[in-house]
Amino acid sequence: MSEVKNILFIMCDQLRFDYLGCNGHPTIKTPNIDKLASRGVNFQNAYVQAPVCGSSRMSFYTGRYVFTHGATYNGVPLNIGQPTLGDHLRELGVSTGLVGKTHMTADLANIDRLKIDPSSISGVLAKECGFEPWERDDGLHPEGANTANLAYNKYLNDKGYEGDNPWHTAANSGLDEQGVLQSGWFLRNAHLPAVVDKAHSETAYMTDRTMQRIEDLGDMPWCLHLSYIKPHWPYIAPAPYHNMYDKSDVIPANRNSQEKVSPHPVVHAFMKHQESQNFSDEEKRLHVIPAYMGLISEIDDHIGRLIAFLDEKDKLKDTLIVLTSDHGDYLGDHWLGEKELFHEESVRIPLIIVDPSKTADSTRGTTCDKLVEAIDLVPTFIESLGGKAKPHVLEGRSLLPLLYGQEPDDWREFAVSEVDYAWRGARLTLNLKPDETRGYMIRTEKWKYVSFDGFRPQLFDLQSDPKELHDLGVSPEFSDVRDELELKLLNWIRKRKTRFTVDYDQIESKTDNADKRGIYFGIW
Amino acid sequence: MSEVKNILFIMCDQLRFDYLGCNGHPTIKTPNIDKLASRGVNFQNAYVQAPVCGSSRMSFYTGRYVFTHGATYNGVPLNIGQPTLGDHLRELGVSTGLVGKTHMTADLANIDRLKIDPSSISGVLAKECGFEPWERDDGLHPEGANTANLAYNKYLNDKGYEGDNPWHTAANSGLDEQGVLQSGWFLRNAHLPAVVDKAHSETAYMTDRTMQRIEDLGDMPWCLHLSYIKPHWPYIAPAPYHNMYDKSDVIPANRNSQEKVSPHPVVHAFMKHQESQNFSDEEKRLHVIPAYMGLISEIDDHIGRLIAFLDEKDKLKDTLIVLTSDHGDYLGDHWLGEKELFHEESVRIPLIIVDPSKTADSTRGTTCDKLVEAIDLVPTFIESLGGKAKPHVLEGRSLLPLLYGQEPDDWREFAVSEVDYAWRGARLTLNLKPDETRGYMIRTEKWKYVSFDGFRPQLFDLQSDPKELHDLGVSPEFSDVRDELELKLLNWIRKRKTRFTVDYDQIESKTDNADKRGIYFGIW
Repeated sequence: MSEVKNILFIMCDQLRFDYLGCNGHPTIKTPNIDKLASRGVNFQNAYVQAPVCGSSRMSFYTGRYVFTHGATYNGVPLNIGQPTLGDHLRELGVSTGLVGKTHMTADLANIDRLKIDPSSISGVLAKECGFEPWERDDGLHPEGANTANLAYNKYLNDKGYEGDNPWHTAANSGLDEQGVLQSGWFLRNAHLPAVVDKAHSETAYMTDRTMQRIEDLGDMPWCLHLSYIKPHWPYIAPAPYHNMYDKSDVIPANRNSQEKVSPHPVVHAFMKHQESQNFSDEEKRLHVIPAYMGLISEIDDHIGRLIAFLDEKDKLKDTLIVLTSDHGDYLGDHWLGEKELFHEESVRIPLIIVDPSKTADSTRGTTCDKLVEAIDLVPTFIESLGGKAKPHVLEGRSLLPLLYGQEPDDWREFAVSEVDYAWRGARLTLNLKPDETRGYMIRTEKWKYVSFDGFRPQLFDLQSDPKELHDLGVSPEFSDVRDELELKLLNWIRKRKTRFTVDYDQIESKTDNADKRGIYFGIW
Repeated sequence: MSEVKNILFIMCDQLRFDYLGCNGHPTIKTPNIDKLASRGVNFQNAYVQAPVCGSSRMSFYTGRYVFTHGATYNGVPLNIGQPTLGDHLRELGVSTGLVGKTHMTADLANIDRLKIDPSSISGVLAKECGFEPWERDDGLHPEGANTANLAYNKYLNDKGYEGDNPWHTAANSGLDEQGVLQSGWFLRNAHLPAVVDKAHSETAYMTDRTMQRIEDLGDMPWCLHLSYIKPHWPYIAPAPYHNMYDKSDVIPANRNSQEKVSPHPVVHAFMKHQESQNFSDEEKRLHVIPAYMGLISEIDDHIGRLIAFLDEKDKLKDTLIVLTSDHGDYLGDHWLGEKELFHEESVRIPLIIVDPSKTADSTRGTTCDKLVEAIDLVPTFIESLGGKAKPHVLEGRSLLPLLYGQEPDDWREFAVSEVDYAWRGARLTLNLKPDETRGYMIRTEKWKYVSFDGFRPQLFDLQSDPKELHDLGVSPEFSDVRDELELKLLNWIRKRKTRFTVDYDQIESKTDNADKRGIYFGIW
């Protein structure tokens, strides 16, 4: 029996699975997140539907795969016709809103076509991916961007940080040894402390805003999406996080020289990207990763603060808490930077769920090896809050059985993730058109199979090669395995829920009974 | 060079390819349609994207396959986010409207979610599939239906036909030998003349309305979709069309007893439907088909009237004329009634296009054997009117090269059609859930391959067996052919345009240049 009334849905950005203490990192300090894991279920095989911010999030927020919702990359508007988490939860009387980032790109062409007033409530919800934008901040505000209305900048100005864009000049820049301001956009400055005081960092501010919002909501049931921009770049942290770690705390890169011999053509093109080149340089990698780790420990501290607040407000007893990330970060592993491809470093995410219900007591502090996906959260939230399942539109499945210690015998056989690299230099390197750039990962218990449009596949045996250093994509002895996985993938695409404007009850009620509605055909 | 200013897009409902004189029917009289064929191109291999009204039309009107637009059956709302013909043509300043049927089901759930005023212009267009509803009439108004606002009923009342629903009691019923009113819904009454005078039939009325509308539009460029409900059932025609044909005019059924030995399970379940049982009875078939033929000749007469009107108004010189249908009618062939499955009788349609441009002179009066699809019309119209191609959203291709006598060397290799029989008795017979009922046809020059979810495929060799009487779906010697076609189908599904909210120019303009927008990542 679910005792959930509220949902705290925390997302970090670009947080790798293995950069948490509870997931085995030997040096990072994440005691508060570890404590969440000890109170809930720590999923060990959770996958994003796309290892890139926008598309991944659109899957988190719609409960649908990227193929189905169509927002295949950052900046691709989520079609106005795709219902979101907020739409589903508002039907249940749950106030559903956002503090932080969504990477939603509004479907302005359709908003215009349908003459929806963008400033009306429904217009704002349509633009904000179904969330009430209690505080929308995607967290990247370069020089020259229009930040006139950015609340965090106003806050920083109020706190005494001057300038038009203190997000950049205070929160994401540091003073070098000569006292010259240096931008955190550049990796070389990752060792500097950000100008901002840790009490005023973006992570601190978003946490404050979250607590204020929870206070304001009073007894109203809510789903609050706290969506931190960090540890996403710019890789620069305020003191003391900027030098909490040093080179000796950095785990070795997961790569070997063999990977550079006949790499997959798409991977090869990605290896040529600047971020891959720089993170392949061991010195640079060791320079940046301590800042990345500091940003994670900073988040951990604020999560501790937030949980203490919920405890004080007596909300822990009926609040479902989720901690996850939208994708990982290669950090030089496999000679790559950033994300977008399908190695575990990019596509596997931390996922910790604390369910306050008594029914979930048996799983507290356990890990779960089942293959779970980002799209599972929407159905989990709906079921937790007592709503009706919507299998005609949602492609994920509720995780409650796993949280309740049940062993469903029909759990999914594989997880899927997708990429569309039309916007990346790799497309130009490979001389492709914008509709020739999609790729798909299918990950079973044993295999990871990757199929790119127009290229040979990749194949990894995750049991004998968990570090994914040996691509079996051209080995003749595995051609049957590859064919089988390709067919699995294609048949999975075939079953996507593109028919989602009717539910199954509506179909059942109109099956084989046109005559009851006076429509007679074929009757003598 | 296109000289097209207006488009007259005529659709008949349930008109088989082979029930036109110009397509080889030995007895039917369609002189006006034949004359259109002599002035344009008569496509011999044109396929609908679904052999059922609503889904087929949603593909005609969106230029997208059923898998992509998601309206897989009659009554499934077309998602609010799917742009339509009207949206594309209005961008070009072309007034785009409807006289007759669309079978559009409005996406009321999303209209409500987005708080679109259903009576606003954009709300009406969203409900009417992008057409200005100059006269919307889907043409099925059973007893008890709310027809208070049906314009055709008001017209009939004005003409002296009494009652609440003269659509039924006058236009679609007849007086029997005893002077008792009999409903045209029942096949047994197909021989009776409809009560209505031929001057007031639905076909006559819609033609009148079309001419009036063209008159009203004056010099404004237009795309007018004249969409007749006939020869769709109720199979009943006014005099003299009711007995223009008799049994001796009916072509033999295309079926043999072999087809009933181990039929495909889905086909078998359809054979049990009432319409299949009744049309399998030769006497009943011979009773009904003369009325079907009369309804076609009635349409032909009105098309003659309409073309004469356009000539008189001097509009033939700049009006592209299309005559087509939304699917066929089994009429007892293959022991089936109605449509929905993939034999040629169901899925192949008449398609005649008359392009007034001089560039099209070389193809006048010719036939074209290329595989063309319903979704090709939207891009054809856009190109004819000088609009920019939209390959990111439209899945068809412009037919102008074929109308201009060019021989594109990259024309499509196969046509695709889809079915979703969740609403039919066949689903109950086969004991399936509503998400296990989809099927796909892939038709190459030589083969027709049909793949139903969960069942063995069908395969026909159209060169050696053009009548599709020998299903090779289980023949061991064709297993390689089947595997190859299945893979073709699956790879076709993989390439569906579910990413359609950005165009290729937008992608090109943002490829590999985030740094130009101040977004620096991976830079030292």
